[in-house]
Amino acid sequence: MLLEHIHEPADLKPLSIAQLEQLAAEIRSFLIEKLSETGGHLAPNLGVVELTIALHYLFDSPKDKFIFDVGHQSYVHKILTGRMEQFDTLRKYKGLCGFVKRSESVHDVWEAGHSSTSLSAAMGMALARDLKGEKNKVVAVIGDGALTGGMALEALNHIGHEKKNLMVILNDNEMSIAPNVGALHHYLGKIRTDRHYQKAKEELNQLLNKIPAIGGKLAKTVERLKDSVKYLLMNGVLFEQFGFTYFGPVDGHDLVQLTETIEQASRVQGPVLIHVITVKGKGYSPAEADSHKWHGITPYKIESGQVLKAVGPPMYTEVFSEALMDLAEQDSRIVAVTPAMPGGSGLMKFAAKYPDRMIDVGIAEQHAATMCAAMAMEGLKPVYAVYSTFLQRAYDQVVHDICRQNTNVVFAIDRAGFVGPDGETHQGVYDIAYLRHIPNMALMMPKDENELRRMMKTAIDYNDGPIAIRYPRINGLGVTIEPEMKPIPIGSWEVLREGDSAVIAAIGPMIQVAEEAADLLKREGLQVRIVNARFIKPMDEAMLLQIAEEGLHMLVLEEGSELGGLGSAIMEFYSLNGKYGVPVRIMGVPDVFVEHGSIKEQRQEIGLTAEHVAAELKALLPRMRKRVPGQV
Amino acid sequence: MLLEHIHEPADLKPLSIAQLEQLAAEIRSFLIEKLSETGGHLAPNLGVVELTIALHYLFDSPKDKFIFDVGHQSYVHKILTGRMEQFDTLRKYKGLCGFVKRSESVHDVWEAGHSSTSLSAAMGMALARDLKGEKNKVVAVIGDGALTGGMALEALNHIGHEKKNLMVILNDNEMSIAPNVGALHHYLGKIRTDRHYQKAKEELNQLLNKIPAIGGKLAKTVERLKDSVKYLLMNGVLFEQFGFTYFGPVDGHDLVQLTETIEQASRVQGPVLIHVITVKGKGYSPAEADSHKWHGITPYKIESGQVLKAVGPPMYTEVFSEALMDLAEQDSRIVAVTPAMPGGSGLMKFAAKYPDRMIDVGIAEQHAATMCAAMAMEGLKPVYAVYSTFLQRAYDQVVHDICRQNTNVVFAIDRAGFVGPDGETHQGVYDIAYLRHIPNMALMMPKDENELRRMMKTAIDYNDGPIAIRYPRINGLGVTIEPEMKPIPIGSWEVLREGDSAVIAAIGPMIQVAEEAADLLKREGLQVRIVNARFIKPMDEAMLLQIAEEGLHMLVLEEGSELGGLGSAIMEFYSLNGKYGVPVRIMGVPDVFVEHGSIKEQRQEIGLTAEHVAAELKALLPRMRKRVPGQV
Repeated sequence: MLLEHIHEPADLKPLSIAQLEQLAAEIRSFLIEKLSETGGHLAPNLGVVELTIALHYLFDSPKDKFIFDVGHQSYVHKILTGRMEQFDTLRKYKGLCGFVKRSESVHDVWEAGHSSTSLSAAMGMALARDLKGEKNKVVAVIGDGALTGGMALEALNHIGHEKKNLMVILNDNEMSIAPNVGALHHYLGKIRTDRHYQKAKEELNQLLNKIPAIGGKLAKTVERLKDSVKYLLMNGVLFEQFGFTYFGPVDGHDLVQLTETIEQASRVQGPVLIHVITVKGKGYSPAEADSHKWHGITPYKIESGQVLKAVGPPMYTEVFSEALMDLAEQDSRIVAVTPAMPGGSGLMKFAAKYPDRMIDVGIAEQHAATMCAAMAMEGLKPVYAVYSTFLQRAYDQVVHDICRQNTNVVFAIDRAGFVGPDGETHQGVYDIAYLRHIPNMALMMPKDENELRRMMKTAIDYNDGPIAIRYPRINGLGVTIEPEMKPIPIGSWEVLREGDSAVIAAIGPMIQVAEEAADLLKREGLQVRIVNARFIKPMDEAMLLQIAEEGLHMLVLEEGSELGGLGSAIMEFYSLNGKYGVPVRIMGVPDVFVEHGSIKEQRQEIGLTAEHVAAELKALLPRMRKRVPGQV
Repeated sequence: MLLEHIHEPADLKPLSIAQLEQLAAEIRSFLIEKLSETGGHLAPNLGVVELTIALHYLFDSPKDKFIFDVGHQSYVHKILTGRMEQFDTLRKYKGLCGFVKRSESVHDVWEAGHSSTSLSAAMGMALARDLKGEKNKVVAVIGDGALTGGMALEALNHIGHEKKNLMVILNDNEMSIAPNVGALHHYLGKIRTDRHYQKAKEELNQLLNKIPAIGGKLAKTVERLKDSVKYLLMNGVLFEQFGFTYFGPVDGHDLVQLTETIEQASRVQGPVLIHVITVKGKGYSPAEADSHKWHGITPYKIESGQVLKAVGPPMYTEVFSEALMDLAEQDSRIVAVTPAMPGGSGLMKFAAKYPDRMIDVGIAEQHAATMCAAMAMEGLKPVYAVYSTFLQRAYDQVVHDICRQNTNVVFAIDRAGFVGPDGETHQGVYDIAYLRHIPNMALMMPKDENELRRMMKTAIDYNDGPIAIRYPRINGLGVTIEPEMKPIPIGSWEVLREGDSAVIAAIGPMIQVAEEAADLLKREGLQVRIVNARFIKPMDEAMLLQIAEEGLHMLVLEEGSELGGLGSAIMEFYSLNGKYGVPVRIMGVPDVFVEHGSIKEQRQEIGLTAEHVAAELKALLPRMRKRVPGQV
């Protein structure tokens, strides 16, 4: 085993190409074996084994800076920088992070989790290097999918302008997470394969027809010229237009080609782009055959490729998916929009049944949002299915285009709350805080999967502006699904359990925590009322006033930022309505970034458990009892 | 006067080209005259007179949809659609909006104020049209500056992929607001002018040298080919790569060329891009000579072009500018970053003195933010100067790149609070709500221009993560500027006026309102304490606890969203620290979008005036007096 002797990048330097090839094979085996137990981003990492080896072989990390876009393809980098033995803890609580993590290693210089940030980071590092008079290389590794994200294109434009020395490795595997969309993708496809050769040649002929006619004996020369011009047009001219020197395409699994091209490119002044063709899932046939499925994977059996799935009630994502299908059948206004997440967002069935009404824009959250606003204006009912953490990227579009123009866009916000092993870059704990203050926005969270269906119907029926449903990345509760999707009155909460000792207002999965806490307190003779505060905006004002009248204390339980969340909303309501005497205790996600682990561990870490809630309520009791009912 | 007879687009149809030319001249005179009294976006509108006439002449609004990017260049459109007589009220309270406004006219189909949204809107409208089986045209008019915004590039990529019928008019005036930056700009420049001809030819020769050598007698043919190939390479190939059919460049002031090209392009299937060259400020020599200055202008004298400026203390922007110069002289780590707003953000002097340390990325707020994170990691001290409303577009980058990685980025957030005549698209009233809940973020607002300088020093000295200063679009108070910039202890508030009847916690310009309100109440025997809550995060916890101990009521006054603002922060603090008895009354911007007018009128509309504050406090007094001091 060569791999056992690699503890840092310097250990690669004396190796021959043949040895590097052997190392690549060993790393693949290692990844396939380890991830079969832990799960993780298998396919992306299998695709960049040779590329990562080549970078560490040729350059000098951490002096030279490697910036991995998204960062989920950094496992090979982690292996080569001394973290091989920690792979048993991958994506586990206090274990190895599934993304680049600066606290893990000096070789991790830039963290991500969201896509398309690497070129901006590289530009910043190159500018800083030059201002400080230093000499290191800056290398960004970005996938073809991430390249279509607006900020990557902004960076491309700026880099081409400034002409700093930096290297972009375009890791082109013909897909991001889902198969890629967009004109850039077509463009890369033209370079990549011969499939479009014929069409390209036809196009070229049309163009060359504009050239004054040339006599017969020159025909052959013209043909040669045409081929040459084709080459010019085909290979990287777009990147050249952006100011880059283009190299490629290079076979990303051929270490000879890779190392030679990278070395050659590293001698060029100004920005260079190396177009590397890789196969996602390379070396593990189940992953090669379905790299979309194997992008991020749960544990599996190596021989069969059978993925081990926990049994249980359907995930909220699946319930959303079915509800959307049911509604779309009745309502032809419905179109679904996704920024490159048709699988993760549960839209594959919809896409199959309604190809014309399914719009995957690629990684382009901003464009998707504003496009939804325009479609809604024209009478459609766009359903923008997006993860809580990725919708962050469209905040301005939600404010300026969707809410300010008060358009009937439906947001299906998946992965709201803790997300578990993806960790801090993916936590969906800010959407309440970043959406709630925008005028015209309505925001809901269901207590169970049947309520999600009812909320879907509510949202589709709603014609007073934008409305969002946030739901978590967990299984439903296994409740009975009612055949009819009964809409919920806008702004209505419901009392799930009566009680007059205190009120817990909770949303989503926190309702179970509230129930458990109430059970614990019941043993001590306390009757806690539990309210399903399912409308975060608008709230149930009548119920809030009633609680104030009763003089009850309230504990607000939410798996979202304590700053700016539901608890704040309730306190604001009381403040703005002159009810100054209602004590409200917020329990949510404190003002820190919560790292990877299981959702249960994440809740435990910050105290979102029944025991903590019960203890918190008990600690409040002396104060509560001081309160005179009716005082407001 | 032809103009008097134009009440709707149909009135244009019978006119000859010569008459349209006359109309263009009349519209220019009208704009120059009217805006000399009201101010407004003169130069952009003078640039699109012929273009707008041509669109209304050829197409059939509102059936055909015109989408103006940013929308500040829609004055000509407003004139041609029956709103000529309202120009005396331009950008005034309850008057004509300075942007496209759907409530004004059926011809206004898409509103904006932020750039780069038009292509996404056009795509949404084209998709909706096709799903509904309708036939109308969709036309987006976008400037070359706005084209570099990430979401416009996302849209370009998606449009090229979907191949819908839609028309993009690229209004290329070689600048957005400031002279443009970026590789795309260079690219357009190559098309636009002959200046780069020589260089382009050299480049081309290098490329053609790859073609096998051809004998002497063919030299002329090759030359001809080279010229043809140059043409192919030069004209629009980038847009063709994106999947558009490219037309242009066209002289945007030549109605014959314009109408012919647009008509020809409108017959093409799939997306088309017409590259129109216009002169910003066309027809008014002061504006042509300095279109940057004349982009948005206050009233002026027509003959001299002399701009009428109110005298008064320096604007906060200017104070920021000077402070940055003073600090940069001492501290070579400081770099300034702007997304295409070097003038508006007060960075022109800095740019002149420190060209290497001034980075204008063009319209690219996201890229700018993430680049700042990387520069800060490498030991620089980036100062990201940006308007409150435009920073919205980098929310995700602030969360994911700057705050999560806890990088030492300084934000200079200009135009915080109401902005006056630009109105609802530009109000800086959400930044507290969208920044405050992000872990690691520090956020300040100065009470006067000297405190702004002290906060600049505080921010530059701060090395514990990101820190932001928000300041308004108004003049300073005329206070004495201390030569030394004394830093302010992090998280410290100050008592500006003693009192024990109640506390007003206020920030920025609201402190003056608080002072006036306190004066009004003093006449009635009430002593109101005024606190400068200059650190919105972290807050002065000791002072907050002290106020709770004293049993005082608090009124929080802020020119920002009542939801998620400083008032909420204070209530959250009390909630999270078990102080349930402190009555806090929020007075800020309610949950609506506030339209254009003067800042004074905007404050008046929502009740942010001394009289309202005093009345609100008085109304609370019976409740206040019921309170038992010391009860918490």
